[in-house]
Amino acid sequence: MNTNEHRDNPEKVKLILEAAQKRFGAFGLMKTTMQEIASDLSMSKGILYYYFPDKEHLYKAVVEKEQNEFIKKFGKKLEKISDPEVMLSEYVEIRLSYFKTLINLNRLSFEASSNINNVLGDIWVEFRKKEVDIVKSILSKGKDQKVFKILDIDETASIFVDLLKGLRMVELHKKRIFYIDEDEYKVLKKKMKIFTELFIKGLKY
Amino acid sequence: MNTNEHRDNPEKVKLILEAAQKRFGAFGLMKTTMQEIASDLSMSKGILYYYFPDKEHLYKAVVEKEQNEFIKKFGKKLEKISDPEVMLSEYVEIRLSYFKTLINLNRLSFEASSNINNVLGDIWVEFRKKEVDIVKSILSKGKDQKVFKILDIDETASIFVDLLKGLRMVELHKKRIFYIDEDEYKVLKKKMKIFTELFIKGLKY
Repeated sequence: MNTNEHRDNPEKVKLILEAAQKRFGAFGLMKTTMQEIASDLSMSKGILYYYFPDKEHLYKAVVEKEQNEFIKKFGKKLEKISDPEVMLSEYVEIRLSYFKTLINLNRLSFEASSNINNVLGDIWVEFRKKEVDIVKSILSKGKDQKVFKILDIDETASIFVDLLKGLRMVELHKKRIFYIDEDEYKVLKKKMKIFTELFIKGLKY
Repeated sequence: MNTNEHRDNPEKVKLILEAAQKRFGAFGLMKTTMQEIASDLSMSKGILYYYFPDKEHLYKAVVEKEQNEFIKKFGKKLEKISDPEVMLSEYVEIRLSYFKTLINLNRLSFEASSNINNVLGDIWVEFRKKEVDIVKSILSKGKDQKVFKILDIDETASIFVDLLKGLRMVELHKKRIFYIDEDEYKVLKKKMKIFTELFIKGLKY
């Protein structure tokens, strides 16, 4: 949520975000227009612009929504699991599926993507902090239970998050656009699994 | 070496490549001119263009030279080491120092870099194969010596190379240009070390 106007009518903002999320998810940022989102809602384009100054800011709000959903979804999962090894594996899997959602929400060329990053600003920095916090809490649990042997939890969590991001980037950079199909997703998922198993084994007593 | 003309005078080509390597290393691709390289060699610009059609192709030849030097340097190191764990750690360290050399040879913005990648073509694909082969030979040695427990050597080697590349990319993408200073290099080196130790522990019986 970027602007004060959002407080006006949270229900309407919610509807707009849901419609935008669907459109961006199916067609990507570039091929979606504000008019289409308005039409999906039987709303005038003017109302859309009342809440969001442009498509990029609407996109930003959708990305933030997805980020919050990911954190919430993962928090719920975490409550049901007590084994830190399973937690870490689950985290990797949910994180990857979230990556796929976001990538396909974007579907931009790398060039176009660096423009939108100016609008997105620090939301990835904030998200990374939340990510590292999640991993830290899992590692701490593992340390407390004497499952993991870790000298520096902060450092280890940060490296783990970087390694996951790195693997995603390496796969994505083989391509010219930010898009990932089912087969590519499976390859990445397998790599993540093997890596996570090695990492967990590396952490263990 | 790209063109048949190189066979004319390998000694002269060697001198040009060394001069270009120094210039690119000190000032980067963008800020180096063919004229400067020619002047360093007390050579006419025309002679330079006789061997290399443009600066980009000269740059490509320098990158190939660096790649070959890395492979050779590492091959020599490897002969003296018998412990596969030490081999893998050495590999990571030499690979990182090579990355720094190459990055600083380039010093481009990401935008400019995608242009030069068209000229560089498949040389990175070839290099990656050589890299994976090196890691495979180390892992095989570890498996034979019953130090490492590995189901699929090809897959594990490929993931290891991707993880290293990923860590480098994550660090580099925090910046707007391809350049890495001493402090950033130290951070990356420490991360690589922690990761490699975890990876080795993960591989062990």
